[in-house]
Amino acid sequence: MKNIKMIIEFNGKKYSGWQRQNNAPAVQNEIEKALLRLTGQKISVNGSSRTDAGVHALGMCANFRADIRIPPQNLPRALNAKLPRDIAVLDATVEDYEFHARYSAKGKKYVYNIYNRRIHSPVHMDYCWHVPKTLDIEKMKIAAKHLLGKHDFSTFKSSGASNQSDVRTIHSIDIERSKDIVSIEISGDGFLYNMVRIIAGTLVDIGLGKKAPEKMAEILMSRNRKTAGKTAPANGLTLKKVYYQELQK
Amino acid sequence: MKNIKMIIEFNGKKYSGWQRQNNAPAVQNEIEKALLRLTGQKISVNGSSRTDAGVHALGMCANFRADIRIPPQNLPRALNAKLPRDIAVLDATVEDYEFHARYSAKGKKYVYNIYNRRIHSPVHMDYCWHVPKTLDIEKMKIAAKHLLGKHDFSTFKSSGASNQSDVRTIHSIDIERSKDIVSIEISGDGFLYNMVRIIAGTLVDIGLGKKAPEKMAEILMSRNRKTAGKTAPANGLTLKKVYYQELQK
Repeated sequence: MKNIKMIIEFNGKKYSGWQRQNNAPAVQNEIEKALLRLTGQKISVNGSSRTDAGVHALGMCANFRADIRIPPQNLPRALNAKLPRDIAVLDATVEDYEFHARYSAKGKKYVYNIYNRRIHSPVHMDYCWHVPKTLDIEKMKIAAKHLLGKHDFSTFKSSGASNQSDVRTIHSIDIERSKDIVSIEISGDGFLYNMVRIIAGTLVDIGLGKKAPEKMAEILMSRNRKTAGKTAPANGLTLKKVYYQELQK
Repeated sequence: MKNIKMIIEFNGKKYSGWQRQNNAPAVQNEIEKALLRLTGQKISVNGSSRTDAGVHALGMCANFRADIRIPPQNLPRALNAKLPRDIAVLDATVEDYEFHARYSAKGKKYVYNIYNRRIHSPVHMDYCWHVPKTLDIEKMKIAAKHLLGKHDFSTFKSSGASNQSDVRTIHSIDIERSKDIVSIEISGDGFLYNMVRIIAGTLVDIGLGKKAPEKMAEILMSRNRKTAGKTAPANGLTLKKVYYQELQK
Protein backbone atom coordinates (compact mmCIF):
# COMPACT_ATOMS: atom_id res chain seq x y z
CA MET A 1 0.00 0.00 0.00
CA LYS A 2 1.56 3.25 -1.15
CA ASN A 3 0.56 6.77 -0.16
CA ILE A 4 0.90 9.00 -3.23
CA LYS A 5 1.00 12.80 -3.14
CA MET A 6 0.09 14.68 -6.33
CA ILE A 7 0.46 18.32 -7.36
CA ILE A 8 -2.40 19.35 -9.65
CA GLU A 9 -3.05 22.35 -11.90
CA PHE A 10 -6.55 23.06 -13.16
CA ASN A 11 -8.66 25.69 -14.88
CA GLY A 12 -11.70 25.89 -12.61
CA LYS A 13 -14.02 27.51 -15.14
CA LYS A 14 -16.12 24.43 -15.90
CA TYR A 15 -16.02 22.84 -12.44
CA SER A 16 -18.11 23.05 -9.28
CA GLY A 17 -14.78 23.14 -7.44
CA TRP A 18 -12.58 20.36 -6.12
CA GLN A 19 -15.51 18.57 -4.49
CA ARG A 20 -18.70 17.51 -6.20
CA GLN A 21 -21.62 19.89 -5.60
CA ASN A 22 -25.07 19.44 -7.12
CA ASN A 23 -24.72 18.09 -10.63
CA ALA A 24 -21.71 20.07 -11.85
CA PRO A 25 -18.52 18.10 -12.53
CA ALA A 26 -15.83 18.29 -9.86
CA VAL A 27 -12.05 18.11 -10.25
CA GLN A 28 -11.83 15.35 -7.63
CA ASN A 29 -14.20 13.15 -9.61
CA GLU A 30 -12.26 13.64 -12.83
CA ILE A 31 -9.10 12.50 -11.07
CA GLU A 32 -10.82 9.51 -9.46
CA LYS A 33 -12.28 8.55 -12.87
CA ALA A 34 -8.81 8.75 -14.44
CA LEU A 35 -7.36 6.59 -11.63
CA LEU A 36 -10.14 4.03 -12.14
CA ARG A 37 -9.47 3.85 -15.88
CA LEU A 38 -5.74 3.58 -15.27
CA THR A 39 -5.70 1.04 -12.43
CA GLY A 40 -9.12 -0.64 -12.51
CA GLN A 41 -9.48 0.34 -8.82
CA LYS A 42 -11.96 2.68 -7.15
CA ILE A 43 -9.52 5.01 -5.42
CA SER A 44 -10.64 7.87 -3.23
CA VAL A 45 -8.50 11.03 -3.34
CA ASN A 46 -8.05 13.60 -0.53
CA GLY A 47 -7.66 17.22 -1.61
CA SER A 48 -5.80 19.86 0.35
CA SER A 49 -8.60 22.40 -0.20
CA ARG A 50 -12.19 22.30 -1.37
CA THR A 51 -12.03 25.38 -3.63
CA ASP A 52 -15.25 27.05 -4.84
CA ALA A 53 -16.76 26.75 -8.31
CA GLY A 54 -14.67 28.74 -10.80
CA VAL A 55 -11.54 28.97 -8.62
CA HIS A 56 -8.31 27.89 -10.35
CA ALA A 57 -5.25 26.05 -9.05
CA LEU A 58 -1.61 26.05 -10.08
CA GLY A 59 -0.49 23.87 -7.17
CA MET A 60 -3.43 22.00 -5.65
CA CYS A 61 -2.31 19.06 -3.54
CA ALA A 62 -3.99 15.67 -3.16
CA ASN A 63 -3.12 12.20 -1.89
CA PHE A 64 -4.45 8.67 -2.10
CA ARG A 65 -3.49 5.31 -0.60
CA ALA A 66 -3.59 2.31 -2.90
CA ASP A 67 -1.70 -0.69 -4.21
CA ILE A 68 -0.70 0.43 -7.66
CA ARG A 69 1.86 -1.12 -9.97
CA ILE A 70 2.72 1.94 -12.01
CA PRO A 71 5.84 3.76 -10.71
CA PRO A 72 4.85 7.15 -9.20
CA GLN A 73 7.13 9.10 -11.56
CA ASN A 74 5.08 7.74 -14.48
CA LEU A 75 1.73 8.67 -12.92
CA PRO A 76 1.50 12.27 -14.23
CA ARG A 77 1.90 11.26 -17.86
CA ALA A 78 -0.42 8.24 -17.50
CA LEU A 79 -3.15 10.20 -15.69
CA ASN A 80 -2.90 13.25 -17.96
CA ALA A 81 -3.59 11.02 -20.96
CA LYS A 82 -6.95 10.18 -19.35
CA LEU A 83 -7.81 13.56 -17.85
CA PRO A 84 -9.58 16.45 -19.61
CA ARG A 85 -7.09 19.08 -20.86
CA ASP A 86 -8.17 21.60 -18.22
CA ILE A 87 -6.76 19.40 -15.41
CA ALA A 88 -3.14 18.22 -15.24
CA VAL A 89 -1.16 16.24 -12.66
CA LEU A 90 2.22 17.97 -12.48
CA ASP A 91 4.00 15.70 -10.03
CA ALA A 92 3.49 12.50 -8.03
CA THR A 93 5.68 11.25 -5.16
CA VAL A 94 5.52 8.60 -2.44
CA GLU A 95 4.94 9.92 1.09
CA ASP A 96 4.77 8.38 4.57
CA TYR A 97 1.58 6.46 5.27
CA GLU A 98 0.42 9.22 7.65
CA PHE A 99 0.61 12.03 5.08
CA HIS A 100 -2.79 13.59 4.30
CA ALA A 101 -3.11 16.42 1.76
CA ARG A 102 -5.55 18.33 3.94
CA TYR A 103 -4.62 17.50 7.54
CA SER A 104 -0.84 17.61 7.02
CA ALA A 105 -0.95 21.04 5.33
CA LYS A 106 1.00 23.73 7.20
CA GLY A 107 0.10 26.64 4.95
CA LYS A 108 -1.22 27.84 1.61
CA LYS A 109 -0.52 30.58 -0.86
CA TYR A 110 -3.26 32.13 -2.99
CA VAL A 111 -3.22 34.87 -5.59
CA TYR A 112 -6.22 37.07 -6.33
CA ASN A 113 -6.06 38.88 -9.70
CA ILE A 114 -7.93 42.05 -10.63
CA TYR A 115 -8.16 43.57 -14.11
CA ASN A 116 -8.12 47.28 -13.32
CA ARG A 117 -9.14 49.19 -16.44
CA ARG A 118 -12.32 50.96 -17.49
CA ILE A 119 -13.20 48.25 -20.02
CA HIS A 120 -13.08 44.54 -19.18
CA SER A 121 -10.43 42.33 -20.80
CA PRO A 122 -11.73 39.53 -23.07
CA VAL A 123 -8.27 37.92 -23.01
CA HIS A 124 -7.90 37.92 -19.19
CA MET A 125 -11.50 37.66 -18.00
CA ASP A 126 -11.38 33.99 -16.98
CA TYR A 127 -8.66 34.71 -14.43
CA CYS A 128 -9.40 38.24 -13.22
CA TRP A 129 -12.12 40.18 -11.48
CA HIS A 130 -12.85 43.29 -13.55
CA VAL A 131 -12.72 46.48 -11.42
CA PRO A 132 -13.24 49.49 -13.76
CA LYS A 133 -12.21 52.36 -11.45
CA THR A 134 -8.54 52.92 -10.67
CA LEU A 135 -7.28 51.25 -7.50
CA ASP A 136 -4.90 53.07 -5.17
CA ILE A 137 -2.40 50.30 -4.50
CA GLU A 138 -0.59 52.22 -1.76
CA LYS A 139 -3.77 52.46 0.30
CA MET A 140 -4.38 48.75 -0.17
CA LYS A 141 -0.86 47.96 1.04
CA ILE A 142 -1.32 50.06 4.20
CA ALA A 143 -4.62 48.31 4.92
CA ALA A 144 -3.20 44.85 4.28
CA LYS A 145 -0.55 45.29 6.98
CA HIS A 146 -3.28 45.24 9.65
CA LEU A 147 -4.12 41.67 8.66
CA LEU A 148 -0.61 40.25 9.08
CA GLY A 149 -0.04 37.89 12.00
CA LYS A 150 -2.29 35.74 14.18
CA HIS A 151 -5.88 36.93 14.52
CA ASP A 152 -9.48 35.79 14.80
CA PHE A 153 -10.54 36.25 11.15
CA SER A 154 -14.28 35.60 11.60
CA THR A 155 -15.00 38.99 9.97
CA PHE A 156 -13.69 37.45 6.74
CA LYS A 157 -15.69 34.23 6.82
CA SER A 158 -18.85 33.36 4.90
CA SER A 159 -21.69 31.97 6.98
CA GLY A 160 -22.36 28.28 6.76
CA ALA A 161 -18.85 27.46 7.89
CA SER A 162 -18.14 25.12 10.78
CA ASN A 163 -17.81 26.17 14.40
CA GLN A 164 -14.13 25.39 14.75
CA SER A 165 -11.58 28.05 15.68
CA ASP A 166 -11.48 31.13 13.45
CA VAL A 167 -7.92 31.98 14.48
CA ARG A 168 -5.45 31.93 11.61
CA THR A 169 -2.02 33.41 10.88
CA ILE A 170 -1.37 35.42 7.71
CA HIS A 171 2.35 35.38 6.87
CA SER A 172 2.40 37.82 3.97
CA ILE A 173 0.22 39.89 1.66
CA ASP A 174 1.96 41.24 -1.44
CA ILE A 175 0.04 43.67 -3.63
CA GLU A 176 1.48 44.56 -7.01
CA ARG A 177 0.43 46.24 -10.23
CA SER A 178 1.70 45.01 -13.59
CA LYS A 179 0.14 47.24 -16.25
CA ASP A 180 -3.63 46.75 -15.82
CA ILE A 181 -3.43 43.70 -13.55
CA VAL A 182 -3.41 44.18 -9.77
CA SER A 183 -2.49 40.99 -7.92
CA ILE A 184 -2.91 40.23 -4.24
CA GLU A 185 -0.71 37.32 -3.15
CA ILE A 186 -1.52 36.06 0.30
CA SER A 187 0.05 33.25 2.30
CA GLY A 188 -0.88 31.89 5.69
CA ASP A 189 -1.26 28.78 7.81
CA GLY A 190 -4.84 28.30 6.67
CA PHE A 191 -7.90 30.18 5.44
CA LEU A 192 -11.54 30.24 6.52
CA TYR A 193 -14.39 29.72 4.05
CA ASN A 194 -14.18 32.51 1.40
CA MET A 195 -11.56 34.33 3.49
CA VAL A 196 -9.26 35.28 0.60
CA ARG A 197 -12.17 36.47 -1.54
CA ILE A 198 -13.63 38.59 1.27
CA ILE A 199 -10.21 40.10 2.04
CA ALA A 200 -9.85 40.89 -1.70
CA GLY A 201 -13.30 42.51 -1.76
CA THR A 202 -12.43 44.62 1.30
CA LEU A 203 -9.04 45.67 -0.08
CA VAL A 204 -10.75 46.75 -3.31
CA ASP A 205 -13.17 48.95 -1.31
CA ILE A 206 -10.10 50.56 0.27
CA GLY A 207 -8.32 50.92 -3.07
CA LEU A 208 -11.41 52.67 -4.46
CA GLY A 209 -11.50 55.08 -1.49
CA LYS A 210 -14.79 53.72 -0.11
CA LYS A 211 -13.10 52.87 3.19
CA ALA A 212 -10.01 54.38 4.81
CA PRO A 213 -6.96 52.07 5.02
CA GLU A 214 -6.80 52.50 8.82
CA LYS A 215 -10.35 51.17 9.05
CA MET A 216 -9.00 47.67 8.34
CA ALA A 217 -7.95 47.19 12.00
CA GLU A 218 -11.50 47.93 13.18
CA ILE A 219 -13.01 45.68 10.53
CA LEU A 220 -10.77 42.81 11.62
CA MET A 221 -11.58 43.30 15.30
CA SER A 222 -15.34 43.63 14.75
CA ARG A 223 -15.67 39.88 14.02
CA ASN A 224 -18.71 40.95 12.04
CA ARG A 225 -18.96 39.90 8.38
CA LYS A 226 -21.08 42.97 7.59
CA THR A 227 -18.22 45.39 8.25
CA ALA A 228 -16.09 43.86 5.47
CA GLY A 229 -16.41 44.30 1.71
CA LYS A 230 -18.17 41.92 -0.62
CA THR A 231 -16.93 38.46 -1.51
CA ALA A 232 -14.83 39.00 -4.64
CA PRO A 233 -15.79 36.74 -7.61
CA ALA A 234 -14.36 33.21 -7.73
CA ASN A 235 -12.71 33.49 -11.17
CA GLY A 236 -10.06 35.94 -9.83
CA LEU A 237 -8.77 33.39 -7.30
CA THR A 238 -5.98 30.87 -7.86
CA LEU A 239 -4.51 28.45 -5.31
CA LYS A 240 -0.77 28.70 -5.98
CA LYS A 241 0.84 26.39 -3.47
CA VAL A 242 0.26 24.18 -0.43
CA TYR A 243 3.04 23.97 2.17
CA TYR A 244 3.79 20.89 4.25
CA GLN A 245 6.72 22.37 6.14
CA GLU A 246 6.34 25.20 8.64
CA LEU A 247 6.68 28.53 6.85
CA GLN A 248 9.72 30.59 7.81
CA LYS A 249 8.05 33.94 7.50
CA MET B 1 -20.16 61.13 -42.61
CA LYS B 2 -17.58 60.26 -39.94
CA ASN B 3 -14.65 57.89 -40.22
CA ILE B 4 -14.30 56.07 -36.88
CA LYS B 5 -11.22 54.15 -35.81
CA MET B 6 -11.63 51.52 -33.11
CA ILE B 7 -9.13 49.53 -31.00
CA ILE B 8 -10.46 46.05 -30.25
CA GLU B 9 -9.43 43.27 -27.86
CA PHE B 10 -10.73 39.76 -28.36
CA ASN B 11 -10.25 36.18 -27.24
CA GLY B 12 -10.05 34.31 -30.54
CA LYS B 13 -10.84 30.86 -29.15
CA LYS B 14 -14.39 30.63 -30.48
CA TYR B 15 -13.90 32.56 -33.73
CA SER B 16 -12.89 31.72 -37.28
CA GLY B 17 -10.71 34.84 -37.11
CA TRP B 18 -11.49 38.46 -37.90
CA GLN B 19 -13.12 37.58 -41.22
CA ARG B 20 -15.94 35.13 -41.72
CA GLN B 21 -14.80 31.72 -42.95
CA ASN B 22 -17.12 28.78 -43.54
CA ASN B 23 -19.81 28.74 -40.90
CA ALA B 24 -17.80 29.73 -37.83
CA PRO B 25 -18.57 33.10 -36.28
CA ALA B 26 -16.14 35.92 -37.07
CA VAL B 27 -15.13 38.89 -34.93
CA GLN B 28 -15.95 41.31 -37.78
CA ASN B 29 -19.52 40.02 -37.96
CA GLU B 30 -20.04 40.36 -34.23
CA ILE B 31 -18.96 44.00 -34.43
CA GLU B 32 -21.14 44.69 -37.47
CA LYS B 33 -24.10 43.07 -35.69
CA ALA B 34 -23.50 45.25 -32.62
CA LEU B 35 -23.31 48.36 -34.83
CA LEU B 36 -26.56 47.39 -36.54
CA ARG B 37 -28.33 46.92 -33.21
CA LEU B 38 -26.94 50.22 -31.93
CA THR B 39 -27.53 52.43 -34.98
CA GLY B 40 -30.09 50.60 -37.10
CA GLN B 41 -27.63 50.86 -40.01
CA LYS B 42 -25.84 48.13 -41.92
CA ILE B 43 -22.25 49.30 -41.45
CA SER B 44 -19.28 47.50 -42.94
CA VAL B 45 -16.07 47.49 -40.89
CA ASN B 46 -12.48 47.31 -42.21
CA GLY B 47 -10.02 45.35 -40.07
CA SER B 48 -6.27 45.98 -39.98
CA SER B 49 -5.53 42.24 -40.17
CA ARG B 50 -7.45 39.11 -41.03
CA THR B 51 -6.08 36.93 -38.20
CA ASP B 52 -6.48 33.14 -38.31
CA ALA B 53 -8.99 31.10 -36.34
CA GLY B 54 -7.94 30.97 -32.68
CA VAL B 55 -5.56 33.94 -32.82
CA HIS B 56 -6.14 36.59 -30.12
CA ALA B 57 -5.86 40.38 -30.20
CA LEU B 58 -5.09 42.96 -27.54
CA GLY B 59 -4.99 45.86 -30.00
CA MET B 60 -6.75 44.98 -33.26
CA CYS B 61 -7.61 48.05 -35.29
CA ALA B 62 -10.71 48.65 -37.43
CA ASN B 63 -12.52 51.56 -39.05
CA PHE B 64 -15.90 52.33 -40.57
CA ARG B 65 -17.47 55.33 -42.30
CA ALA B 66 -21.03 56.20 -41.33
CA ASP B 67 -23.38 58.92 -40.21
CA ILE B 68 -23.86 58.10 -36.57
CA ARG B 69 -25.33 60.30 -33.86
CA ILE B 70 -23.62 58.74 -30.87
CA PRO B 71 -20.43 60.62 -29.85
CA PRO B 72 -17.34 58.47 -30.59
CA GLN B 73 -16.18 58.55 -26.97
CA ASN B 74 -19.42 56.81 -25.99
CA LEU B 75 -19.09 54.10 -28.65
CA PRO B 76 -16.97 51.61 -26.65
CA ARG B 77 -19.45 51.42 -23.77
CA ALA B 78 -22.47 51.29 -26.11
CA LEU B 79 -20.99 48.60 -28.37
CA ASN B 80 -19.60 46.51 -25.50
CA ALA B 81 -23.11 46.30 -24.05
CA LYS B 82 -24.16 44.55 -27.27
CA LEU B 83 -21.03 42.48 -27.95
CA PRO B 84 -20.25 39.02 -26.54
CA ARG B 85 -17.92 39.23 -23.52
CA ASP B 86 -14.97 37.78 -25.46
CA ILE B 87 -14.83 40.89 -27.70
CA ALA B 88 -14.40 44.45 -26.38
CA VAL B 89 -13.99 47.83 -28.08
CA LEU B 90 -11.32 49.63 -26.04
CA ASP B 91 -11.29 52.97 -27.82
CA ALA B 92 -13.02 54.88 -30.64
CA THR B 93 -11.81 58.11 -32.27
CA VAL B 94 -12.61 60.20 -35.35
CA GLU B 95 -10.02 60.06 -38.13
CA ASP B 96 -9.55 61.77 -41.51
CA TYR B 97 -11.85 60.45 -44.23
CA GLU B 98 -8.89 58.73 -45.96
CA PHE B 99 -7.86 56.65 -42.94
CA HIS B 100 -8.21 52.89 -43.55
CA ALA B 101 -7.36 50.38 -40.79
CA ARG B 102 -5.62 48.06 -43.24
CA TYR B 103 -4.15 50.27 -45.95
CA SER B 104 -2.99 53.07 -43.62
CA ALA B 105 -1.15 50.66 -41.29
CA LYS B 106 2.59 51.30 -41.05
CA GLY B 107 3.45 48.37 -38.80
CA LYS B 108 2.27 45.70 -36.39
CA LYS B 109 3.46 44.08 -33.22
CA TYR B 110 2.66 40.45 -32.40
CA VAL B 111 3.56 38.27 -29.44
CA TYR B 112 3.87 34.49 -29.68
CA ASN B 113 3.68 32.67 -26.31
CA ILE B 114 5.06 29.22 -25.57
CA TYR B 115 4.46 27.21 -22.40
CA ASN B 116 7.80 25.48 -21.95
CA ARG B 117 7.42 22.77 -19.34
CA ARG B 118 7.20 18.99 -19.51
CA ILE B 119 3.49 19.00 -18.71
CA HIS B 120 1.00 21.32 -20.42
CA SER B 121 -0.63 24.14 -18.43
CA PRO B 122 -4.44 23.94 -18.05
CA VAL B 123 -4.46 27.56 -16.84
CA HIS B 124 -2.46 28.97 -19.78
CA MET B 125 -3.34 26.60 -22.60
CA ASP B 126 -5.70 28.96 -24.43
CA TYR B 127 -2.89 31.48 -24.96
CA CYS B 128 0.25 29.34 -25.29
CA TRP B 129 1.69 26.64 -27.50
CA HIS B 130 2.88 23.79 -25.27
CA VAL B 131 6.50 22.82 -25.99
CA PRO B 132 7.53 20.12 -23.48
CA LYS B 133 11.32 20.06 -24.02
CA THR B 134 13.46 22.89 -22.66
CA LEU B 135 14.15 25.70 -25.13
CA ASP B 136 17.59 27.30 -25.31
CA ILE B 137 16.61 30.96 -25.42
CA GLU B 138 20.14 32.16 -26.20
CA LYS B 139 20.24 30.11 -29.39
CA MET B 140 16.84 31.47 -30.39
CA LYS B 141 18.08 35.04 -29.86
CA ILE B 142 21.14 34.46 -32.07
CA ALA B 143 18.96 33.00 -34.82
CA ALA B 144 16.39 35.80 -34.59
CA LYS B 145 19.05 38.44 -35.35
CA HIS B 146 19.34 37.07 -38.90
CA LEU B 147 15.73 38.04 -39.55
CA LEU B 148 16.06 41.71 -38.57
CA GLY B 149 15.83 44.27 -41.35
CA LYS B 150 14.42 44.27 -44.87
CA HIS B 151 14.26 40.88 -46.60
CA ASP B 152 12.23 38.72 -48.94
CA PHE B 153 10.40 36.58 -46.36
CA SER B 154 8.79 34.10 -48.78
CA THR B 155 10.40 31.22 -46.81
CA PHE B 156 8.04 32.13 -43.99
CA LYS B 157 4.82 32.31 -45.98
CA SER B 158 2.07 29.71 -46.20
CA SER B 159 1.00 28.81 -49.71
CA GLY B 160 -2.26 30.22 -50.95
CA ALA B 161 -1.09 33.76 -50.38
CA SER B 162 -1.24 36.39 -53.10
CA ASN B 163 1.56 37.14 -55.58
CA GLN B 164 2.36 40.60 -54.28
CA SER B 165 5.81 41.46 -52.96
CA ASP B 166 7.16 39.24 -50.19
CA VAL B 167 9.60 41.91 -49.01
CA ARG B 168 8.99 43.06 -45.45
CA THR B 169 11.01 44.78 -42.72
CA ILE B 170 11.27 43.30 -39.23
CA HIS B 171 12.14 46.02 -36.72
CA SER B 172 12.64 43.91 -33.61
CA ILE B 173 12.35 40.41 -32.20
CA ASP B 174 12.49 40.15 -28.40
CA ILE B 175 12.64 36.69 -26.87
CA GLU B 176 12.18 36.37 -23.11
CA ARG B 177 11.53 33.72 -20.52
CA SER B 178 9.33 34.41 -17.51
CA LYS B 179 9.22 31.20 -15.45
CA ASP B 180 7.72 28.60 -17.81
CA ILE B 181 6.52 31.06 -20.46
CA VAL B 182 8.78 31.91 -23.40
CA SER B 183 7.50 34.88 -25.38
CA ILE B 184 8.59 36.03 -28.83
CA GLU B 185 7.61 39.65 -29.47
CA ILE B 186 8.04 40.69 -33.07
CA SER B 187 7.36 44.00 -34.74
CA GLY B 188 7.63 44.99 -38.37
CA ASP B 189 6.10 46.96 -41.20
CA GLY B 190 3.87 44.04 -42.17
CA PHE B 191 3.68 40.27 -42.16
CA LEU B 192 3.00 37.66 -44.82
CA TYR B 193 0.34 34.98 -44.37
CA ASN B 194 1.30 32.86 -41.30
CA MET B 195 4.71 34.57 -41.18
CA VAL B 196 4.83 35.04 -37.40
CA ARG B 197 3.69 31.49 -36.74
CA ILE B 198 6.25 30.00 -39.15
CA ILE B 199 9.02 32.13 -37.63
CA ALA B 200 7.93 30.92 -34.16
CA GLY B 201 7.96 27.29 -35.36
CA THR B 202 11.46 27.74 -36.81
CA LEU B 203 12.80 29.47 -33.69
CA VAL B 204 11.45 26.58 -31.59
CA ASP B 205 13.33 24.07 -33.77
CA ILE B 206 16.46 26.09 -33.07
CA GLY B 207 15.71 26.35 -29.35
CA LEU B 208 15.33 22.56 -29.25
CA GLY B 209 18.68 22.07 -31.00
CA LYS B 210 17.13 20.58 -34.16
CA LYS B 211 18.70 23.34 -36.28
CA ALA B 212 21.82 25.45 -35.60
CA PRO B 213 21.14 29.17 -34.93
CA GLU B 214 23.44 30.16 -37.83
CA LYS B 215 21.25 28.12 -40.17
CA MET B 216 18.60 30.85 -39.96
CA ALA B 217 20.41 33.00 -42.55
CA GLU B 218 20.33 30.14 -45.07
CA ILE B 219 16.70 29.37 -44.33
CA LEU B 220 15.76 33.00 -44.94
CA MET B 221 17.71 33.16 -48.19
CA SER B 222 16.37 29.85 -49.53
CA ARG B 223 12.90 31.37 -50.19
CA ASN B 224 11.68 27.82 -49.76
CA ARG B 225 8.94 27.14 -47.21
CA LYS B 226 10.22 23.58 -46.71
CA THR B 227 13.48 24.74 -45.13
CA ALA B 228 11.64 26.46 -42.25
CA GLY B 229 9.99 24.87 -39.22
CA LYS B 230 6.33 24.06 -38.87
CA THR B 231 3.59 26.67 -38.54
CA ALA B 232 3.20 27.12 -34.78
CA PRO B 233 -0.40 26.71 -33.50
CA ALA B 234 -2.75 29.71 -33.72
CA ASN B 235 -3.66 29.86 -30.01
CA GLY B 236 -0.14 31.04 -29.05
CA LEU B 237 -0.42 34.15 -31.24
CA THR B 238 -1.71 37.56 -30.13
CA LEU B 239 -1.84 40.77 -32.18
CA LYS B 240 -0.66 43.40 -29.71
CA LYS B 241 -0.67 46.65 -31.63
CA VAL B 242 -1.11 48.25 -35.05
CA TYR B 243 0.99 51.32 -35.86
CA TYR B 244 -0.14 54.16 -38.10
CA GLN B 245 3.00 56.25 -37.76
CA GLU B 246 6.33 55.17 -39.18
CA LEU B 247 8.21 53.13 -36.57
CA GLN B 248 11.41 54.71 -35.24
CA LYS B 249 13.29 51.50 -34.79
